[in-house]
Amino acid sequence: MLVKDPIRYAMIGGGEGAFIGPVHRTAAAIAGNCQLVAGALSSDPERARRSGEAIGLAPDRSYTSIADLIAGEKARPDGAEFIAIVTPNHVHAPAAIAALEAGFPVLCDKPLTDTLQAAFDIEAAAQRTGGMLGVTHTYNAYPMARQARELITGGKYGAVRRVAVKYTQGWLAKAEDGVGKQAEWRTDPKRSGLAGAFGDIGTHAFNLVEFMTGETVTKLAAELRAAVEGRQLDDDGMAMFHLHGGGRGTLVASQVCTGDANGLAISIWCEDAGFHWDQEHPNHLRVNPRGQPEQTWTPGVDRKYLGEPAMIVTRTPSGHPEGYLEAFANIYHDFAKAVRGETLAHPAFTDLADAMRGMKFIQAAHDSSAQGAAWVDIDGVTA
Amino acid sequence: MLVKDPIRYAMIGGGEGAFIGPVHRTAAAIAGNCQLVAGALSSDPERARRSGEAIGLAPDRSYTSIADLIAGEKARPDGAEFIAIVTPNHVHAPAAIAALEAGFPVLCDKPLTDTLQAAFDIEAAAQRTGGMLGVTHTYNAYPMARQARELITGGKYGAVRRVAVKYTQGWLAKAEDGVGKQAEWRTDPKRSGLAGAFGDIGTHAFNLVEFMTGETVTKLAAELRAAVEGRQLDDDGMAMFHLHGGGRGTLVASQVCTGDANGLAISIWCEDAGFHWDQEHPNHLRVNPRGQPEQTWTPGVDRKYLGEPAMIVTRTPSGHPEGYLEAFANIYHDFAKAVRGETLAHPAFTDLADAMRGMKFIQAAHDSSAQGAAWVDIDGVTA
Amino acid sequence: MLVKDPIRYAMIGGGEGAFIGPVHRTAAAIAGNCQLVAGALSSDPERARRSGEAIGLAPDRSYTSIADLIAGEKARPDGAEFIAIVTPNHVHAPAAIAALEAGFPVLCDKPLTDTLQAAFDIEAAAQRTGGMLGVTHTYNAYPMARQARELITGGKYGAVRRVAVKYTQGWLAKAEDGVGKQAEWRTDPKRSGLAGAFGDIGTHAFNLVEFMTGETVTKLAAELRAAVEGRQLDDDGMAMFHLHGGGRGTLVASQVCTGDANGLAISIWCEDAGFHWDQEHPNHLRVNPRGQPEQTWTPGVDRKYLGEPAMIVTRTPSGHPEGYLEAFANIYHDFAKAVRGETLAHPAFTDLADAMRGMKFIQAAHDSSAQGAAWVDIDGVTA
Amino acid sequence: MLVKDPIRYAMIGGGEGAFIGPVHRTAAAIAGNCQLVAGALSSDPERARRSGEAIGLAPDRSYTSIADLIAGEKARPDGAEFIAIVTPNHVHAPAAIAALEAGFPVLCDKPLTDTLQAAFDIEAAAQRTGGMLGVTHTYNAYPMARQARELITGGKYGAVRRVAVKYTQGWLAKAEDGVGKQAEWRTDPKRSGLAGAFGDIGTHAFNLVEFMTGETVTKLAAELRAAVEGRQLDDDGMAMFHLHGGGRGTLVASQVCTGDANGLAISIWCEDAGFHWDQEHPNHLRVNPRGQPEQTWTPGVDRKYLGEPAMIVTRTPSGHPEGYLEAFANIYHDFAKAVRGETLAHPAFTDLADAMRGMKFIQAAHDSSAQGAAWVDIDGVTA
Repeated sequence: MLVKDPIRYAMIGGGEGAFIGPVHRTAAAIAGNCQLVAGALSSDPERARRSGEAIGLAPDRSYTSIADLIAGEKARPDGAEFIAIVTPNHVHAPAAIAALEAGFPVLCDKPLTDTLQAAFDIEAAAQRTGGMLGVTHTYNAYPMARQARELITGGKYGAVRRVAVKYTQGWLAKAEDGVGKQAEWRTDPKRSGLAGAFGDIGTHAFNLVEFMTGETVTKLAAELRAAVEGRQLDDDGMAMFHLHGGGRGTLVASQVCTGDANGLAISIWCEDAGFHWDQEHPNHLRVNPRGQPEQTWTPGVDRKYLGEPAMIVTRTPSGHPEGYLEAFANIYHDFAKAVRGETLAHPAFTDLADAMRGMKFIQAAHDSSAQGAAWVDIDGVTA
Repeated sequence: MLVKDPIRYAMIGGGEGAFIGPVHRTAAAIAGNCQLVAGALSSDPERARRSGEAIGLAPDRSYTSIADLIAGEKARPDGAEFIAIVTPNHVHAPAAIAALEAGFPVLCDKPLTDTLQAAFDIEAAAQRTGGMLGVTHTYNAYPMARQARELITGGKYGAVRRVAVKYTQGWLAKAEDGVGKQAEWRTDPKRSGLAGAFGDIGTHAFNLVEFMTGETVTKLAAELRAAVEGRQLDDDGMAMFHLHGGGRGTLVASQVCTGDANGLAISIWCEDAGFHWDQEHPNHLRVNPRGQPEQTWTPGVDRKYLGEPAMIVTRTPSGHPEGYLEAFANIYHDFAKAVRGETLAHPAFTDLADAMRGMKFIQAAHDSSAQGAAWVDIDGVTA
Repeated sequence: MLVKDPIRYAMIGGGEGAFIGPVHRTAAAIAGNCQLVAGALSSDPERARRSGEAIGLAPDRSYTSIADLIAGEKARPDGAEFIAIVTPNHVHAPAAIAALEAGFPVLCDKPLTDTLQAAFDIEAAAQRTGGMLGVTHTYNAYPMARQARELITGGKYGAVRRVAVKYTQGWLAKAEDGVGKQAEWRTDPKRSGLAGAFGDIGTHAFNLVEFMTGETVTKLAAELRAAVEGRQLDDDGMAMFHLHGGGRGTLVASQVCTGDANGLAISIWCEDAGFHWDQEHPNHLRVNPRGQPEQTWTPGVDRKYLGEPAMIVTRTPSGHPEGYLEAFANIYHDFAKAVRGETLAHPAFTDLADAMRGMKFIQAAHDSSAQGAAWVDIDGVTA
Repeated sequence: MLVKDPIRYAMIGGGEGAFIGPVHRTAAAIAGNCQLVAGALSSDPERARRSGEAIGLAPDRSYTSIADLIAGEKARPDGAEFIAIVTPNHVHAPAAIAALEAGFPVLCDKPLTDTLQAAFDIEAAAQRTGGMLGVTHTYNAYPMARQARELITGGKYGAVRRVAVKYTQGWLAKAEDGVGKQAEWRTDPKRSGLAGAFGDIGTHAFNLVEFMTGETVTKLAAELRAAVEGRQLDDDGMAMFHLHGGGRGTLVASQVCTGDANGLAISIWCEDAGFHWDQEHPNHLRVNPRGQPEQTWTPGVDRKYLGEPAMIVTRTPSGHPEGYLEAFANIYHDFAKAVRGETLAHPAFTDLADAMRGMKFIQAAHDSSAQGAAWVDIDGVTA
């Protein structure tokens, strides 16, 4: 930690071989106001123990089950103040509900859970307990994504007219790519849930659309498919959608786009300016005002032209690139502050309501695709 | 001209205030093997005369009607060898049919014509007369578009899996933009035809998809609309489509994307590489082979790594940028050669069969949109 | 030609196998107001004849010597109105002086000539005859180079503080590259003159510095060398320099920078903005005003924000890239107008005075390098 | 920390209002194997106390003097294992020497110190004590800078022929920018030392040249100046230099280049490839092999084409950008490992020998400039 009296947190999942668990822990370290004090890092007891030892957890706070962690930390005066969930999707709901029931705020990896029904269960638990739940949609936590939102929703540039978002990766491009811990659970309906690529990365794209535009997607027509033979879940898909303000958009999410790494890119055209942002070049927001030269906005604590939402998530002077881990750190930083009761004007974590929308997006895309890309209202989907 | 014994051509349309007529004439000048000898530059006789004088036409070859031009040039031993048509869309068919009937090869601006029925009429005339007709889809005539086609269709990189093409402009973003000679006819169903943006630029995007992939689009689901109130034709739209080889794609065509200039960009992901090309940076083709660093291919007469299709349309050494006018010139250059009977392995002009597909695309997109974005087979559309 | 009554010109040099001759002819074709009517395309009579025939010259105007061309065209009522010189450097002076003496305006490829003494001879001939001479420094004829000049010299952004210009190519990177018509004369002191890379491309870089800043370089310290063993002329070099307004700069010119194509790039930092332009991306001028987002200015006949100097050399709407040949065409267009007596506010050709500065730059760089990179005043150099 | 048993460190400097102190602490947090346990954060006792409290130091380990910190930590069994120095330059030497004398390894911000004499004093102390000292030249710790070094020094691409490096910033562009804690000490000869911009950022550029080429700079000709009136130290300068292998280069370092943020960019041309890297786009290394398309190398734990030096400093999958703080973290990570006795094949910190070269570069540039840009041998400079 980098401040006095950091907020204590525990982690469920994220043991040996995990990808996103170490990312969460490094993000928390950068945030500086969080301290990892406990964990149930694996469902396998021996692996949980080894994983806890490796990252310096006290032996008595390296638990071998979710239930033990919740009970143990609840019982301690210096127990964790919130719980981070970084397991495969199908574990999110039981873990989150147990934590909420025990009074812990929950910071959960995306998507919220594996099925819409499980998401409704979490929502019910949150309502019942009054507990707080945040989800880590990393990409909206970048300074320039936040700057874009401020510019677009500020009204100066008129209504949103068209959106084009794509999230294209190539890491599952071939049948032989579907092995290894990460690939396996993400392509397994039992652990990933209703959707593959649309759940894993399509939700990020969807979240970014609603975040940046400040609008909701009302309906969509989608086609999902498994491009690689033998896959049970979609690894490739596309959608057309409507925004509540009348704008239209396209969304592509694919994990079989050979050569692409983590290609989340979005264009938003308003009546009086276009906005273009690409996660692989996160420090450059292109703004094209009508009739003027294109502008490139960049972060930096010295960039007086930035608005508050971008500035408060910026650490370094202009020209000192911040990246993915810093964006993730913004989420931890703000969630920890909220856990301690601080009200934030521009929290960097995604709240439960927005996370629920991501689950409805998955369901709607799935339903639409099953009906030959018929239009499906997102608000009307059922589990 | 820049060679001895250039091919003589006449122009229909392209008088005072025209945009594309001067582009054609400059393209022909760059091609070097063409010489403009006659014109019917306007349907208004006085304007036709003034326009002809301004560009140096001999008074007796500056005609005031299409019929006169065809008759006059046919009668001369040194008459035009082919006829270029650069009028608004609704004049394409009568002019082309008349020219074909008189034995002239025709080089026509895109889209082929205003309605699918008119296109069928041209097709019939061509079959009847055995005449040759080419269409100026400029963008596939860039060296790097041709290099991409060669790489993609060569088989080395596997099947096409996904395509994302967009053609976004902002020049009609506001109601007040719909004035002026160019804007007016393009937004007028009587002169433009069935489609606005989808006809004007969507056909370019569609053509590029089929050109670069070497495949045909089998069906599409599209939504077109007039985003600016009061417009009679679409100024904004999107589509999802299938390729005959199983690949899928999205297409966006819009003239209300504020801030965009001439934003035609395409990504094609094959099983073993991704390909990315952007018309505003036409000399840089990005190729992403699986597991290797991204490559940027550039044109140049010294670029020994280029294939023949790209090399034969390259004029300058690497690093000396060629642009839109040079791409257009390639079309004239090759059409003129074909007029003189040369058989070309890689002609830079679009032939009638491919131009007909563009017309079916317009009809299919229109039909799909009218049916709530239902899937429509392109080959099955009727006028 | 694309206008009535085009200006007639003759060409010296540019026969079979030449690089820059065809570029000049294509440029003139794009310009539209010029018509090639005669040539002495090679010093070899048979080659001259063949070359003239290939490009459609009338047999009686395809001359076999410079003297014949000048005499022949002078004698005709429809003779050439100006003469373009596209030979190797050592022929520039005799050809230009003969043409000037005969009353022809001269448009000469760069650098002005092979030696400073020869340049003084041309200067004397021009003064003696009152004749006009222009030089083709292509790169300052791009719209965005002209826009930069207007912004920088306009005073709004304060004094020029620092310049960094480089012109790096790789086509002579190896000993085996020094063969072929182009490479051979450019590396031969007898035909190229005092300098190799500094003469061939360093002069372009130097010209661009003075053009864009509107200032003169007062002194420089340079080191030139032959990086490839056995070369007689410099193929690689660098310099530091002072501007008359107090700014400082660096200049690199090299033809052994492997992997670079035609890498002319310049950065100019004024007190209140930085300006960055790269010839390989000529349609994008980056402007970095103090305390504001970076701007990217692009050409286009619809770009109302452009100044007149850029606008008058722009042919196409925004987003339709123009390139090297169009920049070159601007020079022909304007020189032809000047030949007919038009006074131009922003001529796209380089005049004799500026071309003389390029020759002094070569001499000064050579002298400085010979003295261990001592500072040399450019105005004070002697032949 | 993110591992068990992290290496304990103490920090000198870095209190309230400091820029680089928090950067070091965040870097150490990302590294994960370091734990801050003590500090003497300010020379002002009250500020030191407040600063220590703010970042969570135990009160008894928040010292008010360097001497106290060294004595206190030396006396504890759980005392710091190394000391980080992040003060203004003039404090580096006394602090480092005291720490070395007490047996602490030292990780010092750059440049090594204010004067060459002070650097010699540190060198003597290190030799006397056998102690270890590292310097934080952040930029060579980026994965792609390391990949470039591996490619360039691997021999496959031949000798280095030319280098162009620039480090341009605009934050001191105006007289009014010279206020604030950061600007003030950096423009004050008493605290910054012999050089301003050349010391502060020129040393980074110099270090990167020697790091990436694997060669030493033998001599240079430099001109430094204060572009903003009234400055006592250089804020702008340039140099030409020779490498020991025969290559030549230019170096620009300026803090008055308006509009630039942290513009460190380097091009290195070898006989068979060019290499281009820009710190503001640190995840993209352009490699231009002779006769092939340009390649863009990017980091990622899944990038099997990367060499070990780049891979071991990469944390995230491809497409998840890492930035400045991660590069800095690599230095802490490796220095901490070295403190515990691990021998590293590719340490991410700069060792004393290389840091000494940076000091000689400053002296040589200063001496050359004082002699009108005469050539100065770097190895031969004296304090």
